[in-house]
Parts: sequence; structure tokens; C-alpha cells
Amino acid sequence: MQLFWTPASPFTRKVCIAAKETGQWDDIDVRPTTWPLEWGYRTVPFTPGLAEANPLARIPTLVTDDGDALGDSTLACLYLDQRAGGALTPGGADVWRMWSLYGVADGLIEAQIAMRAEMLRPDLARSSAFLGKQGDRIGRCFDEIERRTQELGGKVDLAQITVGVACGYQLWRDWLEDWRPSHPRLARWYEAFAERPSMIETAPAETPER
Amino acid sequence: MQLFWTPASPFTRKVCIAAKETGQWDDIDVRPTTWPLEWGYRTVPFTPGLAEANPLARIPTLVTDDGDALGDSTLACLYLDQRAGGALTPGGADVWRMWSLYGVADGLIEAQIAMRAEMLRPDLARSSAFLGKQGDRIGRCFDEIERRTQELGGKVDLAQITVGVACGYQLWRDWLEDWRPSHPRLARWYEAFAERPSMIETAPAETPER
Repeated sequence: MQLFWTPASPFTRKVCIAAKETGQWDDIDVRPTTWPLEWGYRTVPFTPGLAEANPLARIPTLVTDDGDALGDSTLACLYLDQRAGGALTPGGADVWRMWSLYGVADGLIEAQIAMRAEMLRPDLARSSAFLGKQGDRIGRCFDEIERRTQELGGKVDLAQITVGVACGYQLWRDWLEDWRPSHPRLARWYEAFAERPSMIETAPAETPER
Repeated sequence: MQLFWTPASPFTRKVCIAAKETGQWDDIDVRPTTWPLEWGYRTVPFTPGLAEANPLARIPTLVTDDGDALGDSTLACLYLDQRAGGALTPGGADVWRMWSLYGVADGLIEAQIAMRAEMLRPDLARSSAFLGKQGDRIGRCFDEIERRTQELGGKVDLAQITVGVACGYQLWRDWLEDWRPSHPRLARWYEAFAERPSMIETAPAETPER
């Protein structure tokens, strides 16, 4: 497999953790990408090979063993899960409760990235109302995850991974509010989850601009 | 099941078509939502019940038979597909080729909606560079789908549905470029696909603002 990657992208981190937790990381040829900071609001030059593999030209893009490019992190996680015999999804009807929580955390990450892209705009084109909208959404999602913290127990699954990544990104970017004081149960869960080797090995870092 | 719905949302249309093509539409209690046009750039008052079901407060949100809210159209499609015994996904390794094409069309829709939200901003906060970025992405995706039109044959699947919805949205919004002249194979495929009852019955219309 090939993975178009950056160390800053939480969607990419989710895929990396899914691969590491299922022993598939060594099967992946990591393709680092570079992103001029203008990516947030204009078309930038792409790392060679990226747009050819995936016309969305975004990361993560996972190219499967058969050469099919999956340009969406949820699809990449589905593939890795199936390739690992369903190791990251519970059996039976519980799987939809898991996906429900996954969706909340994944949408939270989408809001974080929308804010990041907005912060990269020139001052004049930056909308404080838009930042407020995404911040409100992030707050509602953390509140919901706090209410559902008991669902984060047991064997690691895609919901736990995605919640862990969302929590970590929010703490990494200093312009995002620290969610821990107002979400104590989640904070306790995260403190333990963040100690997993898959989390430590994928700690975020700034993406090279070139 | 319940589906928080609007007639303008292409992501919602995708879920509706998936339900109709698999005979599940009558099992769905449709919950219409309203959206002040400011939704594109600020938090707006939500239709009662929406944010309670899904903290992302967006549509589509599908609430399953067991009460799990799936606040992402890909997850909703996965659920409907599994509930219908996999009727909308091919078997074997072909499924990843299908998801690969699905991902291109789904990302295309995401770019269309990003442009829509940008168009709704006040003039001063609207970025022509951002509109250009999304337009470039849309162009690359249509080119890729044109190259892969032969994959759109056979039994209806989630890739065909998503491509059909992306094609339809692009034609519905008059500020989006008509893709047909430069993508003749796709145009021929779409002409036939658009005649399906599931497409005709879900033709887009403006969402009520209140």
C-alpha cells in the first residue's frame, strides 16, 4: 500500500493509528507531501504523484494493494479494518453505535480543519462568524463525546482512534480551546489513550511547506 | 428510521436515492429541516431535534432502527447498504474500486458545497481564490470520472449514485460550470441515469429558510 501523508493532518493520523494498531504499518510505503500554507484558500502546487493518484489532491490518500486510491480517511479506515479481518469494528448491531460516535469525532476533526484553513486566509477574507460556527460545532461534539465516554472502553476501535485524534489536535493547535477542564471524564480517558505507542509515534508536527 | 432532510442537499439526495433503490424509502420517517441562508458562515437556529440527534447539526442525519444517529452520508449509505444485504456494493475486491470512484464523486460534492457556502458569505469575506481552488478540484474530479465512465455500468451501486448526484448538483446551480460539453461519455451515461425514478423523485429544490 502507499499512503500520501503529512505529520500535521489529523485525518492522516487516524489512518496511521488504524494501521499501527492492526500491525499493517510496515505494509505501507509512506509518501510525504508538502503544502505551502496557502493551501487553505487557493490551489497550490501538489507533491508529484498526489493529484495523479487522487484528483481531490488531498491527504490522506491510501492506495490499496490492488492500486485503488481511497481519497477519504473513512474509506481508508474501512479498507484497513477489512484487511485486518474487522479488528477495529465491533460485531453485530454494536457496530452502528461505534460508527455513530466515530461520525461525531470525525465531524469534529472536519470543523478543526475548517478553522485551520480559515486561519490561513488573509485577514480581510477571514470570517469570525465562520470561525464561531465551527467552534460552536466543536463544543457541541466534545459535550456529546463526554456524555458517551463510557462507550470508549474495551478493545480499540475506529471510534476510539478518531476521538483520540480529535482530542490531540485540539490540544496541539494553541488557538483551539483546551477541552479538558470542562470534559473531565473524557480527559481521564484521553490521558490513558494518549500513552499508546500508536499515539506517541504519530504525534503531530508541522507539515513542510516545500 | 428517521432522516433529517432538505431538498437542496446533494449529500442528503445520495442517501435518499440509496434508500429508494433498495426499497427502504417507506421505512424512513422524513424530518424536513429549515436553514436560514446564513448557515454558510455562522451558527443558525437549528430545526428542533436536529442538534439533539447529531451534535454536528447538519444534514443528512440518519437515525437507525436502534436509535443510533449517523451524521455523515457515507456512514448512512453503509448502513442502508448493509440493511439491504449489500445490494449497493459489489462483492470481492471490486468493492474497493467502487469505493475509490465513490470517493472521487463524494469529494466533488464536498467541493460543490464548499463553493455554495462561500457564495453565501458577505462580499467582503468571500475569497475568489478559495472558489478557484474548489472549482479546480471539481474540474479534476470530472476529468477522472470521465476517464472511468466504463466503471459506471452494471447494477446500480453507491459510486453510480454519488456520481449521478454530483452531476445533477453541478447542473442545478447556475454558477457552476456545465460539465457536459467537455465530458461526453459521462454526459451520455448521466442522460440515462437521470431517468431513473429515484433520480426524478429526488430532483433538487431550494431549502425553506424557516
